[in-house]
Amino acid sequence: MFEIKDKSLRIKLGGFELIHAEDFPILAVGYGENSYEMSHGNFNISKYYKEKIPLKKFRVLTSSNETCEILFLSDNGEQVKCEFTIESNSLKIRILEHSHGLNRFWLYIPTSENEEIYGCGEQFSYLNLRGKRVPLWVSEQGVGRNKRDIITHFANFKDDAGGDWYTTYFPQPTFVSNRSYYAIFETYAYSKFDFSHKNFHEIEIHEIPKSIEFGTADNLYETVLNLTKRIGLPNPLPDWVYDGVILGLQGGRDIVMQKIKNALDKGLKISGLWIQDWEGKRVTTFGKQLMWNWVYDANMYPNLPEMISELRNMGIRTLGYINTFLALEGSLYKEASEKGYLVRKPNGEEYHVVVTTFPAALVDFTNPEAREWIKNVIKTNMIGIGLSGWMADFGEYLPTDAVLYDGTPAELYHNRFPVDWAKINAEAVAEAGKSGEVVFFMRAGNLYSSKYSTLFWHGDQMVNWSKDDGLPSVIVAALSMTMSGIGLTHSDIGGYTTLAKNIPDVVVTKRTKELFMRWVEQATFTPVMRTHEGNWPDENWQFDSDEETLLHFAKMSRIHALLKPYIKNLVGRYSTTGNPIIMPLNLKYKVEDTEGMKYEYLFGEDLLVAPVIESGQSTKKVFLPEDEWVNLWSDKKYSGGWYEIDAPIGYPPVFYRQNSEWGALFEKVGGAQ
Amino acid sequence: MFEIKDKSLRIKLGGFELIHAEDFPILAVGYGENSYEMSHGNFNISKYYKEKIPLKKFRVLTSSNETCEILFLSDNGEQVKCEFTIESNSLKIRILEHSHGLNRFWLYIPTSENEEIYGCGEQFSYLNLRGKRVPLWVSEQGVGRNKRDIITHFANFKDDAGGDWYTTYFPQPTFVSNRSYYAIFETYAYSKFDFSHKNFHEIEIHEIPKSIEFGTADNLYETVLNLTKRIGLPNPLPDWVYDGVILGLQGGRDIVMQKIKNALDKGLKISGLWIQDWEGKRVTTFGKQLMWNWVYDANMYPNLPEMISELRNMGIRTLGYINTFLALEGSLYKEASEKGYLVRKPNGEEYHVVVTTFPAALVDFTNPEAREWIKNVIKTNMIGIGLSGWMADFGEYLPTDAVLYDGTPAELYHNRFPVDWAKINAEAVAEAGKSGEVVFFMRAGNLYSSKYSTLFWHGDQMVNWSKDDGLPSVIVAALSMTMSGIGLTHSDIGGYTTLAKNIPDVVVTKRTKELFMRWVEQATFTPVMRTHEGNWPDENWQFDSDEETLLHFAKMSRIHALLKPYIKNLVGRYSTTGNPIIMPLNLKYKVEDTEGMKYEYLFGEDLLVAPVIESGQSTKKVFLPEDEWVNLWSDKKYSGGWYEIDAPIGYPPVFYRQNSEWGALFEKVGGAQ
Repeated sequence: MFEIKDKSLRIKLGGFELIHAEDFPILAVGYGENSYEMSHGNFNISKYYKEKIPLKKFRVLTSSNETCEILFLSDNGEQVKCEFTIESNSLKIRILEHSHGLNRFWLYIPTSENEEIYGCGEQFSYLNLRGKRVPLWVSEQGVGRNKRDIITHFANFKDDAGGDWYTTYFPQPTFVSNRSYYAIFETYAYSKFDFSHKNFHEIEIHEIPKSIEFGTADNLYETVLNLTKRIGLPNPLPDWVYDGVILGLQGGRDIVMQKIKNALDKGLKISGLWIQDWEGKRVTTFGKQLMWNWVYDANMYPNLPEMISELRNMGIRTLGYINTFLALEGSLYKEASEKGYLVRKPNGEEYHVVVTTFPAALVDFTNPEAREWIKNVIKTNMIGIGLSGWMADFGEYLPTDAVLYDGTPAELYHNRFPVDWAKINAEAVAEAGKSGEVVFFMRAGNLYSSKYSTLFWHGDQMVNWSKDDGLPSVIVAALSMTMSGIGLTHSDIGGYTTLAKNIPDVVVTKRTKELFMRWVEQATFTPVMRTHEGNWPDENWQFDSDEETLLHFAKMSRIHALLKPYIKNLVGRYSTTGNPIIMPLNLKYKVEDTEGMKYEYLFGEDLLVAPVIESGQSTKKVFLPEDEWVNLWSDKKYSGGWYEIDAPIGYPPVFYRQNSEWGALFEKVGGAQ
Repeated sequence: MFEIKDKSLRIKLGGFELIHAEDFPILAVGYGENSYEMSHGNFNISKYYKEKIPLKKFRVLTSSNETCEILFLSDNGEQVKCEFTIESNSLKIRILEHSHGLNRFWLYIPTSENEEIYGCGEQFSYLNLRGKRVPLWVSEQGVGRNKRDIITHFANFKDDAGGDWYTTYFPQPTFVSNRSYYAIFETYAYSKFDFSHKNFHEIEIHEIPKSIEFGTADNLYETVLNLTKRIGLPNPLPDWVYDGVILGLQGGRDIVMQKIKNALDKGLKISGLWIQDWEGKRVTTFGKQLMWNWVYDANMYPNLPEMISELRNMGIRTLGYINTFLALEGSLYKEASEKGYLVRKPNGEEYHVVVTTFPAALVDFTNPEAREWIKNVIKTNMIGIGLSGWMADFGEYLPTDAVLYDGTPAELYHNRFPVDWAKINAEAVAEAGKSGEVVFFMRAGNLYSSKYSTLFWHGDQMVNWSKDDGLPSVIVAALSMTMSGIGLTHSDIGGYTTLAKNIPDVVVTKRTKELFMRWVEQATFTPVMRTHEGNWPDENWQFDSDEETLLHFAKMSRIHALLKPYIKNLVGRYSTTGNPIIMPLNLKYKVEDTEGMKYEYLFGEDLLVAPVIESGQSTKKVFLPEDEWVNLWSDKKYSGGWYEIDAPIGYPPVFYRQNSEWGALFEKVGGAQ
């Protein structure tokens, strides 16, 4: 509904409204310049604002009940022409024209004291973003991600790699409000979503965006569901994924096959073998690293296609690894370089980026020929030899001063780079006729990644219990992804990062047995279970480091496999109608303090999971919202309230809704060993 | 000279100019709001800018050769009326009027690639500020002052006390340029001086300032001299100060007198005894701390006036300690509280600030009666018992939400608080008829502190060799103070801060013998030598920790005392005509890389000092500018260039100008033992 007065405007959509008045303009615009320093995918961004001009005046150019064309302007000559369109439950704002040269944009949304805000892509530290100023920039997640953390200090020391609460692989310019509306900003420029003000939100975008959309619904659940549908649904996961765990192994055929045999002997249900070193290894000062030439290494994996068939006959799929780089030593680099498919520097040379210790080239995704070429590599060298999936790694490293084929400024393409990386992978799979059978998983992303990537993982957590970067953070990551419309997420079981170089021994963190086992328990109640040996495999506890660990893992793998009908149904609903999978409690229940409750979650509507995320626990204080709940393991019944729940290793607090149609399955699962 | 055209303005003053054009307005204005978090005198300031409007248009209201009244305006209605006045070598800008409500102000100064900028008050890490964005806010200096420093990390961990390269007790909204001009901004609001742009400097002030002044001269030396005179000169130091060192001791009469006797026996020249615990001690979780009730403690110092006389007969003055707080347990607090002389909270209660471990009240300097009262405390309790000086500590802790007697917003008074603290001390001394005989020394300051305080010290350095917060940093501090027009500075010999609580043993830094000895050597070539036992006296190396240290110290004290005629002449010139005392080489010589040379300095025009500021050195690479130099110790002669100079303990690289009229004195000094 448009309420147009002499000096003010009001645009209402259900409970949501935008207001314009001389002392509360809807828009401000300006001019600015950022400078970016990149160190190993971590960015230090210095912002300068030359002008910030509120557009206090407006002129209605055309108007009807559904559509309004309005020119917002300042007396200084800055103008922005917008078209507002209301269609059932959505308000679309198209920016039709604007004065030349403007490159900063602010939109104001009225708010009230109790509004809660969720989303902005993958957030690891905070779920409710009210009170925060959230920068949106695709980058490494950071190591430690908290200035008060000693690991963060040492990660910063050498490489500025420590990160902060907001650093993320997957920011997204969308959010949802507990006032039951969503917002989508069509932009890939650097943005800052400022939810710190009492009376308004200020959305800052470092370009003039093409369009903005708000959508309302009856409640928060419907709001999230609508956002999810709006930004696009992926294919469902392949059926084979649910049949156990994807085991991350490496080291060559013999080692891998032996480990699989041992694991199977102990009862581990294995759906897939993930060998990230399928393309070979290199030795650097960092340790053993992958080769990054996307051709299978016949020394480590002689006749890999045959091995893949053999495993498939055992009911195990094989997965590989690829990323956005090409190793300079490799045959693919040579070809891409000759064909001019690589990202360039301003001086015309190829841009070789040092990710860890060695330089590598980046494929230029704005070049259609380069896209076809890298798709072909995937189709031929990966799908062609029988791989059923892969990690599609990275996507955060496009330098802002790079020169791209199609002329897009790299500063404006940086945040879109991982979306195109997802699209390339999705197209390769589709063109190979393998949609719904192959799964690739990404960490980097942005708006519309959700409809291309088949699965996301939460990146490189520390192998510890820390809230900002350890086991707890993957729960917040999954929930914030849900609130951003992305349903299919999982994590490296046990975490990934051990910081071991250039730091005092006393600070070195290694994955413990207990951490691994608790992480397994959490992962059991997510769509996909997958292990990673971590960046220092020999220094960290592994799934087979002792028999107790392996037996516990095997048991949880069986529970996960038993849950297949339930999980498959969840994923099916998500990929057809957008229903969320991993949910914060407030999506279905009244919760006083969602931020305080953020380490409990609903896995579908019928399971409540409260994983143990601290060490040395044998019980856990659990909040159950108003409903009737059954303890998955003990069958004990609970109403809403706070309870101290037994939680020894192997029995994380998990409850099912007493009235669930899946009750019989859950009874069977709870009794399984 | 004013060049007024239709759409542009040019205001020229020698080589300096201001330009106004539509695409390069001289002014921008706006609206904003800061939020401040204070933790133990360290501030986290969050800035929000609502609008930033360039004033692109102008109207000349009146104009003559010397004066111009100009209205700058935007089409949106923002206006600022300025009066520009050129008088010989200065350009004064008075802001006569401005639109209601404006509280952000930006001024633009054209620059060129090679301009160097110095000043902004006391800077510890950088001397040339070109390329930096320098915030000006009175605060604790910080512990470590470098995010990559492990000590900074631990200082931040508990108290956000680590600081950064720009945190300082004594910021000042002035600077000088190697283009031979100075700038003075009359403001005590939060400011940010942005020298990071290629073509312009942007001076940001969080109020509309009253006036701005630029002054030009023939060269950088004259520029600094003019700035120094312009902001005000203090009295010369008392004659007794030059006769040796001010020895910082504590622990009560017996301990102190015994230590003095021992020191005299070993040949230490003592000009003053500084007993910071003259007003007693308290025991806290922090250790032994001072009482903060400004009355002498007759338990620790029975009949202190008599002891003071006794010392005076030995040629030793006695100095005490005072700060801006009153201990809640003390008699003075009781009186000030009853009379309503204390800073208040918004709810009307007294504002009790926790500095380290205990809360204390702040005297409200905006209340004329409170000022008279605290002056009287100084006159009666300190000067009255015979003290010849004191540390006038603190001045950084006025909370921004405090309520002041005269209604000034505390956010705007915070930066002025230490200036009034200096004025109060100066008035107390003057009213007691002791100007030129009493010396008090401060660390906090701001514009016009220089004309009130008799001496500054560089605050609480770490007891280490670090560039940002150890021995090297006091050289940069002294030089940046000089470039800000403040000539009389010195430091705690050996540094002050040992961080010893809540940190791993391996990180604890303690003052070493070598550090103490090298710091003594540097301090010898400054106006005043003074020791401090540090915050953990028992854990740190002291002047009498072994005989070698004491003998070395005694020798350097004799050298300092021998230099009395030279130093007294320097101080005399400074306090009458503003000539700088401790100078960067480029004030007198051509230097390619002043920033790279910042740890060498001229002490007056005839001594060049290149102190050893790293551990384990027995030689030092020294740059000598184009002149004829004589090594103070070896009498060896040098022309300009780089030399490897012998620098064993006791013989820091110091050179005198061969043509100096003080040559005979320097020969004598160099031969002294």
